[in-house]
Amino acid sequence: MTTTTASPGKRLEHDLLGNREVPADAYYGVHTLRALENFPITGIPISVYPDLLAALAVIKQAAAITNHELGLLSRVHLDAIVAACEEIRAGRWHEHFVVDVIQGGAGTSSNMNANEVIANRALELLGHAKGAYQHLHPNEHVNMSQSTNDVYPTALKIATYSGLHGLVSAMAVLRETFEERAEAFKEVIKMGRTQLQDAVPMTLGQEFSTYAVMLGEDEERVREAASLIREINLGATAIGTGIASPPEYAARVRQHLADLTGIALITSPNLVEATQDCGAFVQISGVLKRVAVKLSKTCNDLRLLSSGPRAGFGEINLPPMQAGSSIMPGKVNPVIPEVVNQIAFEVIGNDVTVSFAAEAGQLQLNAFEPIIAHSLFKSVAHLRQGCLTLAERCVKGITANPDRMRESVRNSIGIVTALNPYIGYANATDVATEAHLSGASVYDIVLARGLLSREQLDEILKPEALTSPQMIVRSQA
Amino acid sequence: MTTTTASPGKRLEHDLLGNREVPADAYYGVHTLRALENFPITGIPISVYPDLLAALAVIKQAAAITNHELGLLSRVHLDAIVAACEEIRAGRWHEHFVVDVIQGGAGTSSNMNANEVIANRALELLGHAKGAYQHLHPNEHVNMSQSTNDVYPTALKIATYSGLHGLVSAMAVLRETFEERAEAFKEVIKMGRTQLQDAVPMTLGQEFSTYAVMLGEDEERVREAASLIREINLGATAIGTGIASPPEYAARVRQHLADLTGIALITSPNLVEATQDCGAFVQISGVLKRVAVKLSKTCNDLRLLSSGPRAGFGEINLPPMQAGSSIMPGKVNPVIPEVVNQIAFEVIGNDVTVSFAAEAGQLQLNAFEPIIAHSLFKSVAHLRQGCLTLAERCVKGITANPDRMRESVRNSIGIVTALNPYIGYANATDVATEAHLSGASVYDIVLARGLLSREQLDEILKPEALTSPQMIVRSQA
Amino acid sequence: MTTTTASPGKRLEHDLLGNREVPADAYYGVHTLRALENFPITGIPISVYPDLLAALAVIKQAAAITNHELGLLSRVHLDAIVAACEEIRAGRWHEHFVVDVIQGGAGTSSNMNANEVIANRALELLGHAKGAYQHLHPNEHVNMSQSTNDVYPTALKIATYSGLHGLVSAMAVLRETFEERAEAFKEVIKMGRTQLQDAVPMTLGQEFSTYAVMLGEDEERVREAASLIREINLGATAIGTGIASPPEYAARVRQHLADLTGIALITSPNLVEATQDCGAFVQISGVLKRVAVKLSKTCNDLRLLSSGPRAGFGEINLPPMQAGSSIMPGKVNPVIPEVVNQIAFEVIGNDVTVSFAAEAGQLQLNAFEPIIAHSLFKSVAHLRQGCLTLAERCVKGITANPDRMRESVRNSIGIVTALNPYIGYANATDVATEAHLSGASVYDIVLARGLLSREQLDEILKPEALTSPQMIVRSQA
Amino acid sequence: MTTTTASPGKRLEHDLLGNREVPADAYYGVHTLRALENFPITGIPISVYPDLLAALAVIKQAAAITNHELGLLSRVHLDAIVAACEEIRAGRWHEHFVVDVIQGGAGTSSNMNANEVIANRALELLGHAKGAYQHLHPNEHVNMSQSTNDVYPTALKIATYSGLHGLVSAMAVLRETFEERAEAFKEVIKMGRTQLQDAVPMTLGQEFSTYAVMLGEDEERVREAASLIREINLGATAIGTGIASPPEYAARVRQHLADLTGIALITSPNLVEATQDCGAFVQISGVLKRVAVKLSKTCNDLRLLSSGPRAGFGEINLPPMQAGSSIMPGKVNPVIPEVVNQIAFEVIGNDVTVSFAAEAGQLQLNAFEPIIAHSLFKSVAHLRQGCLTLAERCVKGITANPDRMRESVRNSIGIVTALNPYIGYANATDVATEAHLSGASVYDIVLARGLLSREQLDEILKPEALTSPQMIVRSQA
Repeated sequence: MTTTTASPGKRLEHDLLGNREVPADAYYGVHTLRALENFPITGIPISVYPDLLAALAVIKQAAAITNHELGLLSRVHLDAIVAACEEIRAGRWHEHFVVDVIQGGAGTSSNMNANEVIANRALELLGHAKGAYQHLHPNEHVNMSQSTNDVYPTALKIATYSGLHGLVSAMAVLRETFEERAEAFKEVIKMGRTQLQDAVPMTLGQEFSTYAVMLGEDEERVREAASLIREINLGATAIGTGIASPPEYAARVRQHLADLTGIALITSPNLVEATQDCGAFVQISGVLKRVAVKLSKTCNDLRLLSSGPRAGFGEINLPPMQAGSSIMPGKVNPVIPEVVNQIAFEVIGNDVTVSFAAEAGQLQLNAFEPIIAHSLFKSVAHLRQGCLTLAERCVKGITANPDRMRESVRNSIGIVTALNPYIGYANATDVATEAHLSGASVYDIVLARGLLSREQLDEILKPEALTSPQMIVRSQA
Repeated sequence: MTTTTASPGKRLEHDLLGNREVPADAYYGVHTLRALENFPITGIPISVYPDLLAALAVIKQAAAITNHELGLLSRVHLDAIVAACEEIRAGRWHEHFVVDVIQGGAGTSSNMNANEVIANRALELLGHAKGAYQHLHPNEHVNMSQSTNDVYPTALKIATYSGLHGLVSAMAVLRETFEERAEAFKEVIKMGRTQLQDAVPMTLGQEFSTYAVMLGEDEERVREAASLIREINLGATAIGTGIASPPEYAARVRQHLADLTGIALITSPNLVEATQDCGAFVQISGVLKRVAVKLSKTCNDLRLLSSGPRAGFGEINLPPMQAGSSIMPGKVNPVIPEVVNQIAFEVIGNDVTVSFAAEAGQLQLNAFEPIIAHSLFKSVAHLRQGCLTLAERCVKGITANPDRMRESVRNSIGIVTALNPYIGYANATDVATEAHLSGASVYDIVLARGLLSREQLDEILKPEALTSPQMIVRSQA
Repeated sequence: MTTTTASPGKRLEHDLLGNREVPADAYYGVHTLRALENFPITGIPISVYPDLLAALAVIKQAAAITNHELGLLSRVHLDAIVAACEEIRAGRWHEHFVVDVIQGGAGTSSNMNANEVIANRALELLGHAKGAYQHLHPNEHVNMSQSTNDVYPTALKIATYSGLHGLVSAMAVLRETFEERAEAFKEVIKMGRTQLQDAVPMTLGQEFSTYAVMLGEDEERVREAASLIREINLGATAIGTGIASPPEYAARVRQHLADLTGIALITSPNLVEATQDCGAFVQISGVLKRVAVKLSKTCNDLRLLSSGPRAGFGEINLPPMQAGSSIMPGKVNPVIPEVVNQIAFEVIGNDVTVSFAAEAGQLQLNAFEPIIAHSLFKSVAHLRQGCLTLAERCVKGITANPDRMRESVRNSIGIVTALNPYIGYANATDVATEAHLSGASVYDIVLARGLLSREQLDEILKPEALTSPQMIVRSQA
Repeated sequence: MTTTTASPGKRLEHDLLGNREVPADAYYGVHTLRALENFPITGIPISVYPDLLAALAVIKQAAAITNHELGLLSRVHLDAIVAACEEIRAGRWHEHFVVDVIQGGAGTSSNMNANEVIANRALELLGHAKGAYQHLHPNEHVNMSQSTNDVYPTALKIATYSGLHGLVSAMAVLRETFEERAEAFKEVIKMGRTQLQDAVPMTLGQEFSTYAVMLGEDEERVREAASLIREINLGATAIGTGIASPPEYAARVRQHLADLTGIALITSPNLVEATQDCGAFVQISGVLKRVAVKLSKTCNDLRLLSSGPRAGFGEINLPPMQAGSSIMPGKVNPVIPEVVNQIAFEVIGNDVTVSFAAEAGQLQLNAFEPIIAHSLFKSVAHLRQGCLTLAERCVKGITANPDRMRESVRNSIGIVTALNPYIGYANATDVATEAHLSGASVYDIVLARGLLSREQLDEILKPEALTSPQMIVRSQA
């Protein structure tokens, strides 16, 4: 039973399942409407990912230009489609991208949502009513020479590429903030710890420099992963054979898309493979997980070093950002590192989701790219916000308690390690054991045992000697 | 430098970091404001979880009643707090719960958001201005005898309990839909398959009954997990020692809370343990993962059995829900099972996030409960929507192709298994091999080899005999 | 090209792929030989899981008894098969179970390995040569009325059941060790910590009791999960329809198996479902993950509380088990908690493997049960060893540093929380802030500000009052 | 209570915990002995990883050479140590590396096991008794200028590097096997499928080429990851400050190690960071997961395409490797792809273990590297075996059923897609719908409707036209 005339405020549209009424002012059409009904999962529409909408629009624009060049699309159609696409890229009509972020159908509904919004906006620009597809059709014109199966993965790659560059910038901000703190703390001597046990001395600057270096390396890895997703399958159409597209199409559309986006895109040499393969997304997700793991480790350290104020390590102070407790007055908690830890846990979980979705692809297509996209977009955006928040609201304001740290070095057993090359591991073990049991200092015990002179000890144990490799002057063992 | 007079449209509030301006019409206060600034992560406020807001409000209500009974809270304060809590439970003021779903601070900001909204609404009901906390204070009155560390986990448990019951209902709907289809298909004979290879005959009804049974078992497991989270730590206050709460408080508040919610809540026998332990959440997440794994397997089967229409298994038909392709006309895809697969992948990833967050708890508290809550709430809600969607938009409309399936049984080699007890595994292997190589039927080969008579074969191979255990009448080997 | 006579030291066996030479002294046969060649993956044979071999043997024994009762198996065959099975259950012939732990084929190779070893040992007991299957056949007699698809999952369940009981015993040992320490430390007052920041006082006994309680709860969950896997599908044969088995078989074999194992086994009400479903294994894996998560959290705490000796928390001392460093003399590390952390990480990873394998099941069978088994067996065994090692080599010898802990309470700001009900959150916040900035004690500041008298303070702040709920005597706010 | 004289067959050794008896013929010493007792977890000794033992030995050798050059180690000691190391690298003494693969202590026990075996073997070569450490000491001489914290990660990197190159070779073998099959199948036309639904035509050669291309890309990614782990921290000693090592040591030892291994090793520019960071391992694990995901997808496809023999897709035949069933005669299962799927599931789980272990690192060291190593070594080795097995025992012998596939193209609705550019999406949808309902062919319906001529149809629908982009000759829409 199919409706044949529209109710007030509605217009009729038709698809292979029959007729349906669409709100008259909706730029989307019947395909989007059905998707809206079919996927009532999260309540979150794809418009929360503006980079994705822009990517879909720029692909449609490049395709239209190419189709026109190849004599398949008229100038009139071209101009209207391009104008509509540019509006979307500029941020308009996003509220008409209403399909749920978790959707069946390999992205078809997202692609059709774009085709319909562009078609209806183009129709409007041409002076036609929305839905008057005899003049300009979502599938025949907007989607010409395309399939969801090449448009959607290409859009994901372009959107992810943008997102990753935003992430790298945020990581750089955080890295520079750590570098600035490392410089500020470069003279502050403290005990290094391995396995949470007092080890040997280092500077707080050395400690903070590691966080900067980790980020720097991770920026490099993110950039590499971003570089890999420049390889697209546009021109593959349905399964990679390019059916229903002309021979020159793939090369030309890539060029136009590269020009429009400013990204040095590459057409995959084997489009059948490129259409089914999610390897690049798995790779990126793995790299994001790497970033998350190391950010989380960094935040764990910040929370540990600032534990206290009195019954903890108390070596550094995080800037207080809010009252920490509804019951314990005056308590201040490390809430900024904590929120970054939680982002990291989310990203690591997202990576498992991506692995599952990628593994589930079958034959010529992976039907589960929407959840891959959803997972990646969340990971990228939250990591970005996490880095900026951590930089601005925590690391930038960290201060040190140098007296406490200096005292812990003076008082430590671990400095006996520096005597190792002079008195031997076995002697040094005995000294350490005595220090531990008696509470006496390593310095005094070594002197008392006559193992080294006061001058030797002072030379070996001066701070700058303890925190870098040193010449060892002794006879061969 | 601290503001001391408010700008227009603002009011001044104070906390341990100094004064801040809050929008004059905001029911939240300075603690929420700082949290809003500190956690710009997802842009999604906690108000997307109405069960959580209701749970926070009902806890505050129960606490106020208890505090009044114990002589700690005046009747005037009690009435105003109760009225505000009931409004929130009825769905009002949710837009003032603005803290991000991913937040640092172990839930303190969510708890303070509740304390502040309730206090300001109560003040309003008492005829005071918002922010006039000298009359009724978010911490001293609304949060009396409480800490985030007992309120927040208790709220998560109540909210999750509600969510799980919604999930079980949705699972039951899906189960009943499968049962109805199993009944409809009970006479349809087909080949069973193991390892994707033709095995032995069964009915399509038997096949569909398994999906119903799986769901039934999972409902039971979800109910058990829900039952376990009835154990709460309210009364623990900061770390489980009950500091700043009176001795009778824990027992009384549990009773009031049970009465108000209708849930048979239990106070944990060791509140110190209960305050730091996330085991119940890990357990639930594990059970949700179990549900997801099996739902995903079910959807994989539905997609496989309906593969085709011509070059696949083609045994069943899923109802068409939308056009499947932007380029391939007439193609219809299994979009509903596909969306449920993706929900499952998300839930499995969420489980890893929960594991990470739970493992990261330290000493007397787990600071990472907000991401546990976020993960669980998503898993529960999406699984629920997935079950309902799958039932209504897919399973209910599934039809069978009995001729094709019957033919595949007649044509099969696997029925030789039924002859095993009569002709032996070695003979049967030879028959199967000949059938495979020659394309001839098992029936004809057995006859030709004189291994069994036509009467015996007809008896052994009738459909009802093939799909259930049978008396084996033969001499002992 | 098929061999027809055996080389020296070999015997000829035949299967559907032709003839093959098997070592003359091997109890396994051609099916096992091919599996050995097909799966050169880990180099670890299934004999590393003696519980699995015993489970396979006891199932074969129960099946033989049942087949004999039903008139399908002669007394001679019965006796020989039973004798062979009992020898295997007693630990003999394990070296002939040579198939790799990671194997294709849904466990067929493990089942055939058992069938062949039992047949050849039975043949030997009957005075026949190995391989003389015309007298007693691995498939026709040992595997009679059975399929891998019911034998293998049933064997996994019986083996896992045994393993889980061993795990629960080990957890109980660890729990009792923590209980003993909690009792020893029950008077030792210390600062509790939330979010690694000093919170409010508690006793070290309270802290250690939580580890015992967590284990106790987890023991309960493991027992529940173990109880669920008593449901078996023996009698299902190939896909659950019971093809090639007689009607009374399922009930009788269950009874014999229950009698032989002492486990109250249940036959699944829907054998088709039970044959394809891995839900019970997913559930167990989820529970093991829960145990792992909490054990890891416990070990994290132990490592944190014993951090130092001088620049850490230094509240407890773990017994030294080995020299901690090849370079730092005298350093002792928390190696036992560290190894348990690592077991936990492995178990959590194994859970993801189990999820993947379970989700990948298709239609009437899950072909990936071998990796599920491998993952579960490792998790169970390693957790068990981890619990015993942690109890014996760490927890049992833990000592406390009560002076240091007492001092940290005296010196703490967090005790201001106990004053909350008397002086209000706002006043208490001011006191805490002054304490933090000046370094003065809360006690002195409260006195100086005249907020409470010395008598009141002494009463409110005595240790037993700080570590449990207290009557609050004040006028209503 | 410490032993002071050795029992028969034992020798006495001493460490900071006292004296212990070591078996007289053991090359390991007291540190290893204690580790053996402390970590009774898996029963699997580190000697299962010969690459690791070789890596430890070559590092000790390079360190000895460097120490001698720097005047710290005598020629006599040097020669003995080098000789012992070379023996180990040649495969001797592996049975004396007995520490469990899962061990606490950040690898100290593995390093000390190496120090002790080398020292004792060197002593023996010098004519001394084992344990006569006054002549040559495990810590003072073998471990000179080193710490576990630089030796162990460096050894993991060298061992992983070797393993990865073995993996890449195995992947190349598999890739070439797929390429060979793709070439053999290049003329075989078949239906492509998206979302398991018939899509548009392609060749079986195109399908198989994708598996080769995926592997080729993954080889590249593995090579990149291998390249990244050439960065080592040798010279960092305890925490990266190089304490107890001379200034020139790091540069010189790197050079010697590079010369000895033939790997272009790089010394990390920030040794403090390099000593605590596990990023390179996380990266590799992520890449291995990528390989696993795609191998699993490939195996899923192979199992699906070979499903049948009669009631499945039946497009290809996998070579039979073993009888598939203990009950179903003649059944042959895809056991080789199945075992590779399971390896993939294990690798994906291992990746989660690695993430957990890496995230758990604290301050200057990650104490959990042994489980990272165990996980990576398993993943690398099993993937390698999986690739070789899949190539040799499955892909190489795959044959096609071209008639069946050709028929499915002829019979398909999906070829209507090729008509899209000529008759439009809307017309094509109507044709497809009629074909689906009536069972008639697309060809006949298009003719009957007069949409295209027979000549046009024959041109558009010839196989080579269907499987690549085509000129579209029509007037502009």
